[in-house]
Amino acid sequence: MRRETLDDNLARIQDLLDEMGPEVTTAFRHASSALLDGRERLAEQVIARDPMIDDLRSRVELLAVETMNIHAPVVGPLRSVVAAIRCAHQLERMGDLAAHIAEIARRRSPNAVPEIVRPLFREYGTLVGAMGEKAVTVLRTRNVVLATELGADDEQVNAVHRRVFEVMFGDEWAEGVPAAVDTALLARFHERFADQAVSMTERVIYAVTGQQPDALSF
Amino acid sequence: MRRETLDDNLARIQDLLDEMGPEVTTAFRHASSALLDGRERLAEQVIARDPMIDDLRSRVELLAVETMNIHAPVVGPLRSVVAAIRCAHQLERMGDLAAHIAEIARRRSPNAVPEIVRPLFREYGTLVGAMGEKAVTVLRTRNVVLATELGADDEQVNAVHRRVFEVMFGDEWAEGVPAAVDTALLARFHERFADQAVSMTERVIYAVTGQQPDALSF
Repeated sequence: MRRETLDDNLARIQDLLDEMGPEVTTAFRHASSALLDGRERLAEQVIARDPMIDDLRSRVELLAVETMNIHAPVVGPLRSVVAAIRCAHQLERMGDLAAHIAEIARRRSPNAVPEIVRPLFREYGTLVGAMGEKAVTVLRTRNVVLATELGADDEQVNAVHRRVFEVMFGDEWAEGVPAAVDTALLARFHERFADQAVSMTERVIYAVTGQQPDALSF
Repeated sequence: MRRETLDDNLARIQDLLDEMGPEVTTAFRHASSALLDGRERLAEQVIARDPMIDDLRSRVELLAVETMNIHAPVVGPLRSVVAAIRCAHQLERMGDLAAHIAEIARRRSPNAVPEIVRPLFREYGTLVGAMGEKAVTVLRTRNVVLATELGADDEQVNAVHRRVFEVMFGDEWAEGVPAAVDTALLARFHERFADQAVSMTERVIYAVTGQQPDALSF
């Protein structure tokens, strides 16, 4: 049996990340759809699949440590392996956030989001979902140019975030306290998902270029 | 000049973590005090000091990668180095959460927490602050027995968390929507800080014992 080379191991780590990425973006898309369209079964599915994402994270980590132990990679590949561990954690966290959204969607189904902020959450879901997909594409392709788009996307997300809070704190809010609290948490989960997508992308860039993200106008 | 040994490097990484830990626990204690006692200047101090914690995280990571690159440690110390990177990220995140609490404390000063939930937040702050300190002690001393306490602490934290929401959703809440939203976010930041403390401790145990935390009744 041929002994696995460092490149074999790096490829296996990348395969695991490429399996995690679409799991996480799908979880978010489904959670968002469950939230906006009252699809309770879809929410349950997101919650049920989350442990699979956690399991993939754990496999990335074990394989990364094994790789460093067996192959003692020099600084370039070493940076990739360390970045892979970090990205796996960020994907796991993004999966958790999608599951948190799904939990609220299930609990408040079929009208999880008050009518008055529903168009904002539709925009929010579309924007954040697209950011997740871009980040996962960057992780797969190491496309540094695509990575630079995430910064501008994040500003749009922050603008929607502020508008959600303006509506909740304005005179037209007639939904009461529990709906406001859940809406605030939903907004926070969307915002954090987007933050993690940006931060994961920065990680990939660092692994590719060796440059700290600050130097790349993030 | 004597070349640095692996042990020298591991000690330098531990020194950085031991510098980060107390910064983070102090940030939380100060944020909690700013919140409960309307100490606006203290809140500003927490926010101003947060970049220093981020900088320490970055130094841990650079030194860890350098250590793996130069010394190619075998699996035991390798696990420690990987755990150090992870713990530094968790401490950074705990610092962020303390800063988020301080931001709300500053914005709503001097009465950041409505009277009706103030005793709960006092309890919450004391519990979560103590968990942060235990986690930092575990990180410094690798005391596995102390680590096992965190699980029980976390259940107490969850009980307080639920009570905060019961009060907000009950008939006696007369504070309106904005205060409810900030209270919910404050509760979430406390809960996440505690979660990170537990999770960091699990990390340390894994580095020490090589056993996944599940096997240790977490």
